[in-house]
Amino acid sequence: MVKILILGTGSMATNHAAAFKAAPNSSVVAAVEPDADRRAAFGKQFGIENLFPDLESAIAWGGFDAAANVTPDAVHYPTTMRLLEAGKHVFCEKPLATNYPLALEMAETAEAKGVINMVNFTYRNSPALQKARELVASGAIGEIRHFEASYLQSWLVGKQWGDWRTESRWLWRLSEEHGSKGVLGDVGVHIVDFASFAADSNVATVESRLKTFHKAPGDKIGDYPLDANDSAVMTAEFANGALGTITATRFATGHANDLSLALFGTAGALEVKTDGRASSLRICTGEKDIDGQIWKDVETPPVATTYERFVIACNTGVNGDPDFRRAADIQRILDLCFAQDKARTLTAAAPAVEG
Amino acid sequence: MVKILILGTGSMATNHAAAFKAAPNSSVVAAVEPDADRRAAFGKQFGIENLFPDLESAIAWGGFDAAANVTPDAVHYPTTMRLLEAGKHVFCEKPLATNYPLALEMAETAEAKGVINMVNFTYRNSPALQKARELVASGAIGEIRHFEASYLQSWLVGKQWGDWRTESRWLWRLSEEHGSKGVLGDVGVHIVDFASFAADSNVATVESRLKTFHKAPGDKIGDYPLDANDSAVMTAEFANGALGTITATRFATGHANDLSLALFGTAGALEVKTDGRASSLRICTGEKDIDGQIWKDVETPPVATTYERFVIACNTGVNGDPDFRRAADIQRILDLCFAQDKARTLTAAAPAVEG
Amino acid sequence: MVKILILGTGSMATNHAAAFKAAPNSSVVAAVEPDADRRAAFGKQFGIENLFPDLESAIAWGGFDAAANVTPDAVHYPTTMRLLEAGKHVFCEKPLATNYPLALEMAETAEAKGVINMVNFTYRNSPALQKARELVASGAIGEIRHFEASYLQSWLVGKQWGDWRTESRWLWRLSEEHGSKGVLGDVGVHIVDFASFAADSNVATVESRLKTFHKAPGDKIGDYPLDANDSAVMTAEFANGALGTITATRFATGHANDLSLALFGTAGALEVKTDGRASSLRICTGEKDIDGQIWKDVETPPVATTYERFVIACNTGVNGDPDFRRAADIQRILDLCFAQDKARTLTAAAPAVEG
Amino acid sequence: MVKILILGTGSMATNHAAAFKAAPNSSVVAAVEPDADRRAAFGKQFGIENLFPDLESAIAWGGFDAAANVTPDAVHYPTTMRLLEAGKHVFCEKPLATNYPLALEMAETAEAKGVINMVNFTYRNSPALQKARELVASGAIGEIRHFEASYLQSWLVGKQWGDWRTESRWLWRLSEEHGSKGVLGDVGVHIVDFASFAADSNVATVESRLKTFHKAPGDKIGDYPLDANDSAVMTAEFANGALGTITATRFATGHANDLSLALFGTAGALEVKTDGRASSLRICTGEKDIDGQIWKDVETPPVATTYERFVIACNTGVNGDPDFRRAADIQRILDLCFAQDKARTLTAAAPAVEG
Repeated sequence: MVKILILGTGSMATNHAAAFKAAPNSSVVAAVEPDADRRAAFGKQFGIENLFPDLESAIAWGGFDAAANVTPDAVHYPTTMRLLEAGKHVFCEKPLATNYPLALEMAETAEAKGVINMVNFTYRNSPALQKARELVASGAIGEIRHFEASYLQSWLVGKQWGDWRTESRWLWRLSEEHGSKGVLGDVGVHIVDFASFAADSNVATVESRLKTFHKAPGDKIGDYPLDANDSAVMTAEFANGALGTITATRFATGHANDLSLALFGTAGALEVKTDGRASSLRICTGEKDIDGQIWKDVETPPVATTYERFVIACNTGVNGDPDFRRAADIQRILDLCFAQDKARTLTAAAPAVEG
Repeated sequence: MVKILILGTGSMATNHAAAFKAAPNSSVVAAVEPDADRRAAFGKQFGIENLFPDLESAIAWGGFDAAANVTPDAVHYPTTMRLLEAGKHVFCEKPLATNYPLALEMAETAEAKGVINMVNFTYRNSPALQKARELVASGAIGEIRHFEASYLQSWLVGKQWGDWRTESRWLWRLSEEHGSKGVLGDVGVHIVDFASFAADSNVATVESRLKTFHKAPGDKIGDYPLDANDSAVMTAEFANGALGTITATRFATGHANDLSLALFGTAGALEVKTDGRASSLRICTGEKDIDGQIWKDVETPPVATTYERFVIACNTGVNGDPDFRRAADIQRILDLCFAQDKARTLTAAAPAVEG
Repeated sequence: MVKILILGTGSMATNHAAAFKAAPNSSVVAAVEPDADRRAAFGKQFGIENLFPDLESAIAWGGFDAAANVTPDAVHYPTTMRLLEAGKHVFCEKPLATNYPLALEMAETAEAKGVINMVNFTYRNSPALQKARELVASGAIGEIRHFEASYLQSWLVGKQWGDWRTESRWLWRLSEEHGSKGVLGDVGVHIVDFASFAADSNVATVESRLKTFHKAPGDKIGDYPLDANDSAVMTAEFANGALGTITATRFATGHANDLSLALFGTAGALEVKTDGRASSLRICTGEKDIDGQIWKDVETPPVATTYERFVIACNTGVNGDPDFRRAADIQRILDLCFAQDKARTLTAAAPAVEG
Repeated sequence: MVKILILGTGSMATNHAAAFKAAPNSSVVAAVEPDADRRAAFGKQFGIENLFPDLESAIAWGGFDAAANVTPDAVHYPTTMRLLEAGKHVFCEKPLATNYPLALEMAETAEAKGVINMVNFTYRNSPALQKARELVASGAIGEIRHFEASYLQSWLVGKQWGDWRTESRWLWRLSEEHGSKGVLGDVGVHIVDFASFAADSNVATVESRLKTFHKAPGDKIGDYPLDANDSAVMTAEFANGALGTITATRFATGHANDLSLALFGTAGALEVKTDGRASSLRICTGEKDIDGQIWKDVETPPVATTYERFVIACNTGVNGDPDFRRAADIQRILDLCFAQDKARTLTAAAPAVEG
């Protein structure tokens, strides 16, 4: 039985509390929230008895084994480091940290402490993704040579999720000043993890290009400068040698929230799709099907969620996946994309060469 | 009535002769072929009376208005330049030349001479492509923001087209020494043209990555060093500002010969597909369909072929599309991809840094 | 008579106060310093009557025309923006801001306000540099084709300035956490300005490479992670088309503080050298000297300092050089160098490609 | 006693013949030249008895141990490969081949054959260079951290060597069509070898920029398109970790033919200079001299020439330096510079992005 502290009480924290309450061999024993009203309401909603205004009080109390870190992105690092110091297992929301050096330090610290450390990459909960990885690892499609991965959204065009022009829950995502790293930080992180997890190989090299399109007069709406990236495209190579493209965009008109991944190998090919709810998997394998370009649906059994796997990891002492090291690897790719983009943008700001 | 000379008698020349014979207001009046037997056979097959062993003799004779240049790639430049000098219209097989400076010179010369000059990008014959371009130009999807383009083949994995390990008609395509520029030169040229034609905008910038995979012991089969690229991926930006990816590969297991293009705009999206025979087009447009992610099939009326459009251009005196200038623009992109790849490869050949 | 406020009282502020006291038509009327003892001591040292604990009090008082901003680097932006808002002329220490977007905003704001705005690039005080610029502008060496610029220091090797291993006044310069941007931020900014000022042309494009060498066990001394760059090298092109290299290093054993610049033109060449105290200038020009590679010393008359020129600008209302716009241009180059370096470093952190 | 064949009879062949005649334990026994008059004249000038119109005849005759390959650049590869096949030692003019893959194949073949293989990098004959290398290898300046290398010419500005506008011996060097690879191929190859030889470490990574300046109406003089590079600049890192710049230019007004190299180490610094005739060496080392920036001249004893060392290698069976492998390493750097430049140039040819 793992005793879990929920750090934060926002809407994502609600998901964590519900998931950990529902998971076998787990109980939510405490929560931390500075605001007294929110703290009380959260405690009441989930029947949590031990409520603290700050992390230090919770650590002083000490009656928990593990913490779910659902604080704002920039707070993940200091709070997680404090929890690790106190010897607690940590399940952290993504992104693990705001940059690679911090993420790496968190991974190394957690490993040195020997505690369970996992990150909540939610798309790992797709049965089709887990099955695809299994098939790749079993050699079902041979050596992967090529891949295409994309995460397509369209809320900058369609109104299916509301209107970004007027709603702050969308506007902040368009503005670096409000903490956004654009589509790359928001969902690019998922598709990079998704693709390389299925391929069973890390991203070795990447070349990316980001773009922020003109979207409003002066590219500003109220207090929100609209400067975060809207689209991100990459060419990449996995450590296993496969070559391919990775895309994330909020301008994919006609797609609300579609992840798709094709893996092409020397003995077959796989295609995974999910919209975050249902997921599907197709395979083309065997000489006859390959020669005839025949694709078949694959059954994908239900899988444990990242929440459930964190609980299992705490109870067995065997770290789960995705761990902090994995999150740091992904963060390196994101940092690299941003650095490449900044270099490109500053180059373009140059005065024209006359000569 | 355009009087056409066919320059070359290989299998692609057969297509040209048949197409020009069938086109209205066109007649195939002559052919050039050094080999006497082949020359006679070709003349007999298509009922061509005037047969010449070389281009000079044909020009001396002079009884043709236009030439279809179906010589080997490296011979396109000198023969076309000679034809232009003689004031003839030229319909040239792709690629127009072996590099951008030569292609540009050909375009500038043809323009200065004021003759009809076109290149045989065969996928322009897809009704869905032409309709997509028309819809884009009419504003049906607003301003294009994002695109995904790919040309997927799998003859390095499947045997649907024979076995590359033993057949020279495939082996030469894997070997630079035998004149191949790999998948990029072979079909990459098509997908670059396809995507930017539909988007009604030139490729402005590109960053590419090529790869040649290990495919045989010593990466050699008989006289064929297997050094030509198997896969090519790019991130690109069109002059209209759209961002996206372009892919060409021979390792797309499960796809024999599939071109697909998605164009995402501020007022809708289009998806074009063709396997070189049938082509299809889907659209998502209008507030309701965009918000609901509803895609509808679009009817695509038959279109004139590049052969037919060349004949029309000769008869009307109005140059057709794709012209030499267009082919030179595409060649610039290909040259850039090769240069970027060479720089990357030579960098990777460096001794490790110790310090 | 310009009434000047000194904002800050550190060692560089001492230089400012002394220089502005000595300059004609200028008086130092006030200073701002939060620490009471330091404030009193500074007031006493320079006979300044109006002393304030913060900028707001000084602005409320209002008895000054211009401010010398000698605050820490990161404070330049907010304090300068506040001064501009209050309609004051500003003379700011370098770097103008910590990044290009902020520097550009400061330049645009100062221009919109129409106040005098200058930055203290001290090497502008070299007579040889000013004379070189004059000769270039007069056409004495024709069109510049090539240049070599370097700023060579060696305090990481020699002990002429003390021992960086034990002295905090050096150690902080090796540590990003302590606010350093390494040799590039420290003196690279000077050589970039120096070279392009003499050449009378902006840096249009640059490709740079930074390096931090291993210097201590764990690359840390006490609280100082030694992570700031020690050497910076660039290839660059000026807007006038000249091509060349720019170097800044703390590892140039045998050179304490040597700036040198060679400008090679179609009608002659110039060589400027300074160690920050004396400066010298040589020229090779005229057919006979060029053919014989004969170089001659050029006399360089004394020049007004940046402090004196700021006072003149305030009194005449004509902005002086280097202004904020110039500093922003230089900052763009530095930001670009850092982005290129970060991209390179993160790439190098990749897992090896197996395939 | 090594019996040497001279392959070619141009002006550089004259140097070879004279040098090998003068070297101890060497005799020039044969020469190859297709032109009968030139063949006879060359034979007479150097008293060579065995004269052949082509290499095959010379090999059929067989009476030589080693060949000096002084053919045109593009002919080095086929002739050297033939000589290696025949088991002959080969001393080849630079550049070894026209590209890296060919150069590497020559190196690997020579090594497999076990014959002596050397390349004529003539600046290796500088006593100061050899002494500098010796001092570096002995640890006299500690670990090298920084370097500056340049090869400065000015024959595009001064007339000390004649007038490039009218003399074909200079014009061909400005024109790729006439076989030139510009300043990079001409003397850049020397400075890259010079710098990394002195530093006792290979060039690991390089980023270069080439430029061809406007020099004549239409950038053409008679049959010579003036398209070869005039200036080349690089940032580079050696395998030993040192960072620095490398420059080669024909626009260094005031310098006829000056190579200079500064190597800055953790225990001292060296400065080598040569104009191809005299060479000089200065050192700054020891705590007192480093702290005082005191540089001292170093005596440099005479050294054997590359010709003499080739003869010694043939007589002892121990391969000399620079060997083919070295030349291939240098060729890789040059090829990389050209590929980087081509990519840059083609990128710049792009249509403007509108969006």
